[in-house]
This record gives sequence, structure tokens and C-alpha cells, in this order.
Amino acid sequence: MPSVQPSDPAGYFDAAAGRPLHPVAVQAWQAAAEDGWADPGKLAGPSRRSALLLDAARETVAEAFGLAPDEVSFLPSGVHALQSAVLGAAYARRARGARIVHSAVEHSAVLHAIQWHVRRGGLAVPVGVDAHGKVSASEFLAAVNAPGTAAAVLQAANHEVGTRQPVEAVAAQLRDVPLVVDVGHQVVFGAVPDGADIAAADARLWGGPGLGILIVRRGRSFEPPFPREDPEFGRSAGVPDVPAAVAAAAALRAVRMDREADAVRLAGYLDDLRRQIAQFPDAVVLGDPVDRLPHLLTLSLLHVDGQVLLDGLERSGFIVSSGSSCTSDTLTPSHVLVAMGALTTGNIRISLHPGVNARAVERFAQALPSVLADARAQLPGAAPLQAGPQTTTPNVVDSRGRRCPLPVLDLARALPLIDVGTELLVLADDPAAGSDIEAWCRMRGQELVDVRPAAPDTGQPPGTPAAVPATAARSETAFRVRRLS
Amino acid sequence: MPSVQPSDPAGYFDAAAGRPLHPVAVQAWQAAAEDGWADPGKLAGPSRRSALLLDAARETVAEAFGLAPDEVSFLPSGVHALQSAVLGAAYARRARGARIVHSAVEHSAVLHAIQWHVRRGGLAVPVGVDAHGKVSASEFLAAVNAPGTAAAVLQAANHEVGTRQPVEAVAAQLRDVPLVVDVGHQVVFGAVPDGADIAAADARLWGGPGLGILIVRRGRSFEPPFPREDPEFGRSAGVPDVPAAVAAAAALRAVRMDREADAVRLAGYLDDLRRQIAQFPDAVVLGDPVDRLPHLLTLSLLHVDGQVLLDGLERSGFIVSSGSSCTSDTLTPSHVLVAMGALTTGNIRISLHPGVNARAVERFAQALPSVLADARAQLPGAAPLQAGPQTTTPNVVDSRGRRCPLPVLDLARALPLIDVGTELLVLADDPAAGSDIEAWCRMRGQELVDVRPAAPDTGQPPGTPAAVPATAARSETAFRVRRLS
Repeated sequence: MPSVQPSDPAGYFDAAAGRPLHPVAVQAWQAAAEDGWADPGKLAGPSRRSALLLDAARETVAEAFGLAPDEVSFLPSGVHALQSAVLGAAYARRARGARIVHSAVEHSAVLHAIQWHVRRGGLAVPVGVDAHGKVSASEFLAAVNAPGTAAAVLQAANHEVGTRQPVEAVAAQLRDVPLVVDVGHQVVFGAVPDGADIAAADARLWGGPGLGILIVRRGRSFEPPFPREDPEFGRSAGVPDVPAAVAAAAALRAVRMDREADAVRLAGYLDDLRRQIAQFPDAVVLGDPVDRLPHLLTLSLLHVDGQVLLDGLERSGFIVSSGSSCTSDTLTPSHVLVAMGALTTGNIRISLHPGVNARAVERFAQALPSVLADARAQLPGAAPLQAGPQTTTPNVVDSRGRRCPLPVLDLARALPLIDVGTELLVLADDPAAGSDIEAWCRMRGQELVDVRPAAPDTGQPPGTPAAVPATAARSETAFRVRRLS
Repeated sequence: MPSVQPSDPAGYFDAAAGRPLHPVAVQAWQAAAEDGWADPGKLAGPSRRSALLLDAARETVAEAFGLAPDEVSFLPSGVHALQSAVLGAAYARRARGARIVHSAVEHSAVLHAIQWHVRRGGLAVPVGVDAHGKVSASEFLAAVNAPGTAAAVLQAANHEVGTRQPVEAVAAQLRDVPLVVDVGHQVVFGAVPDGADIAAADARLWGGPGLGILIVRRGRSFEPPFPREDPEFGRSAGVPDVPAAVAAAAALRAVRMDREADAVRLAGYLDDLRRQIAQFPDAVVLGDPVDRLPHLLTLSLLHVDGQVLLDGLERSGFIVSSGSSCTSDTLTPSHVLVAMGALTTGNIRISLHPGVNARAVERFAQALPSVLADARAQLPGAAPLQAGPQTTTPNVVDSRGRRCPLPVLDLARALPLIDVGTELLVLADDPAAGSDIEAWCRMRGQELVDVRPAAPDTGQPPGTPAAVPATAARSETAFRVRRLS
């Protein structure tokens, strides 16, 4: 399979999963490898040189984020930094309670940390999101203000669909409870939100090496949730890797130098793409259309298997993600898309880095329709159309025995064949069909009238409401859908 | 202050605290930075290249250690790997008990992990060591075989004094309880000991970047003690840093290519140094004289402040450690030296890397006496001799009001002035004098006859046993020492 060369990153549209090391990161690492290999916590000459380099890296990161240097710690990985932030904020306040309030759409590393907290007797209070993936500030605050809350966790922006969360609005109303913010995807082009008490980011998001940044604002309580070591103000797991810290800081400074122009330029590319995609049948853009990350766009493309689509796009020279950035290769549905009530199949996330140009995005938009058509043709049972759903009557679709995403695909094909205002009955026995059909109706503005166990036809006349055929068994489900448009 | 240049590492005698990045590590990192930046857990082209590099690095490490690749995981730091090893072994067996049996001289990161376990309701059972810092296999096994033991933790060799621990002897007698082994200092010139079920090492010890290796032998139970992430067989905190893993593997292969010759050569340098040091007054080599790491030697140099000595050696072009590698700069006494019953002041650890040559070690031996004399001259109250202890009678030394290490220094100077077989009484009021005097007597083969609260002379005739002068107060301590040689 041909692949995009790292020396030509124009077709790499998966920056939110990490991006090529920035050239200044590579140069900085090389210089620091020579002079920064020793333990910066000791006193001898090589250690003093390491400590100077580490201090300079810390000041660079602090300056980029408008922080004091002692608010910045280098942790050995982005995941470790995120998990330390969440658990360290809660652990410091364990005398006040064991509740961690969080949005349902946090990064999986954050959710894993919270699950860990729960397995050890803690309590997790997830707050749902709307169809754009956005938390309601008032709903979030209501959950936080219940007694016994140790920490509130809210990402600056969602890593899968780009929607910004109301961090400032929440922070303005919070008193005692510390607000922990995953700032990774936000800080590349933006800032650490005002009101974040504790924050964390992964340096790979801006072209640094694998390294985490933990931010603890002055005066905020933090206790390391894992075994405590002295380095990095007692917040890290041992001696920091100085060359990695130096490289991360250099890359951060470099990417932020042109961040405003880059943000405008990349958002412009994605606005163009969004307009083109609006012309595609069965394509929906997910996430908040306005209050969003500038460089990230997620599409829901019905009738395709995400991985087949990814492979097809890669053959055309483009690397994107499908579903959750963390779960796309494990076939687990994205918890973000589930929380939004969106379809969890056939999604692709496009996330641009500044090395991408307008021509590459244009080529992508040109390539997408044929890649999509090829991918749809490969979906078993999906093509040709006549081999698809068994439409026993004009208003009943029998998708029994067909695995997801086929039932929702059958629905999408059959619905335009009936009159607006009339109903269609879909029979399915794949347990996942329910969430798919519900999400599809919500996304497409059609009405899911009811869902019930399928039962044999008891002799009512066919027509509206659609009758269940006599062959249906009790383990099957009938979905009644009214065409509204 | 002048300092050794990293480009001339001949005088860097602190390899056990991490050593300069190996040139092949730097080259490997540069190559992997180009091709290994993407998440190796995804499926697209850049990720496939990352995964290939990571697999190759894993195979290199596995081959070096005689392991299967799936027994090797890359963790984001050496400390994280050590702590995961200890706590992950215990956590997997939590249904069997909460006891962790460990030597009292493990690395501080291991002890911190065990303290963390205890704070969460676990139990720690430390096993003491002899004067060489070695655990008794039978004593260790007796502790492990008590009911409720979740894990046994025993380092391959001590990181401060070089003594090897009886890992194979212990392993041969263990049945169910997993043996967790800190192999870092051992594997550079040796092997992962047979019988280690779970092991960990820090790549900085062989010239790699900051990265940990976690080894879980096949069939052994391990559950991640921290929030679980998918990568690295579910044993790591997130996506591994592929360039760092590639660099660590390349350095390991390079250092192990000549490891047997290097071990013989470095041990030879240290044998020569040991012979020269035997001529020095008041210098004792710590640790097992035979069953030890080839590249590490620790000296106890009475009458000096360790940091002053380090500074003097650095001015002569040599970097060594003082006391604990982890606590030397925090003025906490080394827990290893305390457990051995050795003096905790005036110690230096010399640890060589293969770039050191015979000439450098000779220059070190030549420089040490004058550096030592200068350092002793700087010790407040230590010189000139006549300003030292107030010898009120020939067999009483009054060290009251003098801070450690002065009381033991007073003892060391006064004892040669009395006849062999007779006794000296030392009065001191520094609380730390007791452990110093006890350790000094043990190290020098003199007899500490008794230790008791100092009380006024009740009229017994002066002589043997030495009488406490009438000026002593109850908060003071009297040490009766018999000169044996």
C-alpha cells in the first residue's frame, strides 16, 4: 500500500493524533543530547548544564502560555500528565469528597483515570453533551456544586469533533472546586483558558517528542496521585528527560510564532471543505459549526465502513482518523460520538497542521467522492442496491440478519422512496441497530416514532402505521420512522 | 567553577546516575524522529512505519536480555517502569494479600512505590542487610513465605555500593510469590537474573534517553497499578515515544557488544584503585569485596563533608556521587548506608562507564589525597588538630556542643592515643553521633562497649571503665569504646 512520505506531510490530515516532529524540535534535541543528558537535580558540572537547559525550556513553555515557570512541570508522557492533573487535583481535596465531575466527552486517558479513581472507591459524575458535543455550563455547574466534589474536569475543546467547551463560563462561577482542563488540542493555536486551575497537554500535538506538560497554577492544591518523587516540584515520576523537554519547548515556541495566521488559514481551508461537503449526499459535519478548533473537522459519512474509507483515502495520499482517535483501531465505538447521539460508524476526523496547504485540501475534496463511492461499493450487502434490503411491502424494510451499519443504511435508502409525512417500519435484530437508527434520525431531521419488540402481525390492515410481518420473532425490534423531509 | 566537558567524558565517574547519550543512541533517535513520530497503534502509513521501528527496538532489547519480544514493554521513564513493576506484581495478586517483602536497600523509587502502597492500606516488610549491604537469602525467604505476601522485591545489585543480591538463590526457593527485580545497574554488563518474574530498568544507565523498560516474563501475573492504557500490552501509560525506544535499544546493543571485555577492564581499574585506597588513613571501601558490580566502588572517607569533597574532585576534573545517588543533594542520609550500619557522611561513589581509561583512574588516585586533605581542612573545627576535642583526661573525649561528623572524628583521632585493650569515653550531645560512632566502630573493628545517658560522676575512681565527668547533663550520651587494634 503506498503511503504518504513524512518528508511530504501535505497529505497528513491527522495532526490531532500527533504530528511529525518539528524541525526545530529535532535540532534542539540534538543540541540538548550533547549538553543535557545528566540528572538536572544534582550539583556537578554536567548536571548544572542540564539544569540550565531545563530551566530555559520551562521558561519557554511558561512564556508561551503566559504562566510563571514554577507553574510548569515536565512529565514523562502526555497521558501521564493528563491523568496526574485529574487525579492530583482530586487527591489534594480528598478530605472534601471523592466526586469527580467531568464531561462525558473527555479524552479516553482522562476517562481511564476517572475509572481508576472509581475502582478505588471514588465517584464519577459524567455530564452529558448536546448534539454538537458541547457541555451546558449550567448543567455542569449544577453537578459540580453538589456536595463532596473534589474536582471538576472539562476539556478546552473536544479532540474528536473540535467543539470548544464553556471553560471560562464554568470557571467564572466556580469557587472552591478546582477546574482541571485538558488543553492539548486548544493550546496549539490558542491559549490556556482563564480559570483553569490545573491543566495538561501532550507535546506531540505541537510537533514535540512524547512528553507531557502539567500546569498547576500558583496557590492551587495538587498532590501527586502516584508515588511521589522529588523532581519537577514533586509532581513528576522521576528525573525529566531534558533533551525531550528542550525539544518540546522549542517546537511550542516555533508553532506559536505564526499561530494566529495559521489558525485563520487552516480554518479557511476547512470552511471551504465544509461548503463542498454540504453538497455530498449522506454527509454531515459533526460538532459546533462556530465555536470550534480551527484545524479540526469531523464528517459523518453514512453507508461506509470507516476503515475502508481510511484505506481508500490513504491510497489517494491522505491520512485521516476514523471515530475516536484512541479507539479507531480497536473497533470500540467512540464514546464522544455515543455521547453526542451521533452515528458511530463511517466517521472521519480531519485535523490539519500548518504544513498543509490549500492545494492539498482541494485535492482531498476532489478525491473524497470517488473514494467514498469505492468504499460504499465494498460494504458487504451495500451494493448493488437491488441486493440490499428486502422491502416486503412499500413501507416495511426487513433488515433482519443484516449486521450494523446495514440496517441504518437500509433505512436511509428506503425512506426517500416513501411520501413525506408517511411512515416506514424497519425490522432489525442487530442489537446496535437501535442507537444507529436513533442517531441517524436525529442527525437527518427525521422522526423516530417508536421502537418496540417486533411481534407477529395480528391481522390489522396494512398501511399506516406499518404492520409487523407474521415472520417476526420476539428477539427482533421494529423501528417506526416518519419521513419529515 | 571549571567542569568536565561532555566531549571529554574520561573524568565522569558517575555512570550510575546516568551517562552521556551513546553516539549510536543519538544517531538512532535522529533516524527514528524522521520515520517514527506517528502513533504506532494506528493503521495508516506513518503509524505502520512507527510500529515497525518499535517492533525492531523491542526485538533488540529482548534479544539483548534473552527474552521474548512480548516480555518487553517500553514505559515513559525508568522510575515509572520500576514503580509499575513493583506495584503491578502486587496488584495482580491483591486477592492473596497486601504484603510486599523487599530489601531495605532498594532504589528510592522502589521504596516510594512501596510507601504509596502502604498509604493505601498495603503492608511493607523490609528485610535488613549485612555490613556489606547484602540481604540474607534465608532471611528474605522467611519473610516472603509468611502468609499474605503479594510480591517479593529484590534488586539485582545495589546501586550505591555495588553489592550483588542473592536473586538466583531466592528465586530457586520461591513458588507462588513473584520476584520483582530492579535490573538497571546489573544489565549494563550482566544479564537479567534467572528467576526474575518481573523486572525493570532505566535506559539512561546504558546511554539511552529517559525511558523505562518493563519486563514481564510469560505466564506471570501483572496488572497495571496505574490507570490502564492499551499500548505496550496494556502495561504502559499511553503511546510509547518511538524515537526514544529506538535510541534506547540501539545504545543497549552497542554497550553490550563489548560488555565482557569492558567489565573486566573497569573492574581492573577499580581493583587498582582499591589497593591504593587501602593505603589511605581513614578510608574504607564499602560493599561486598567480591560479589559486586564491576564498575562501581564506594568509599567511606572519614573526616570530610561529602559535598566539599565532590567540589574538590570536580575542580580536579572528576565527577562522582556522594551518599545516595538520589538523596545526595537533599542532605538526607542514604537509606542504604543507614541499613548497612555504615557512616552516612564522607562517602563517595565512583561508577565508571566504558569511555573511562586507565590513565583517568590513575589521575584520580593521585588527585584524591590532596583533595581529601583540602576538604578536611575546610571542615569547621576539624583542623588544626589542637582546636579539636577537649580531652579532659587521657581517656575522656568531650565532644559536647560539636556537631556531626565532629564527634566521630574526635573519637577517630583520640583512640590511637590510648593503649590497645583500654577504653575511651566519648561525650556527645548531637543526636546523630550515636549512629556515627556505632558505624565507625563496626567499620574499623573497634569495640563499642556501651552507650548510656551521661550522668554525673558518682565518685568511682577514674580509670577503666572511664568515668563520666561531673559536668555532664542528662541529655548527653556517653560512648565507651575499647581500642582493639
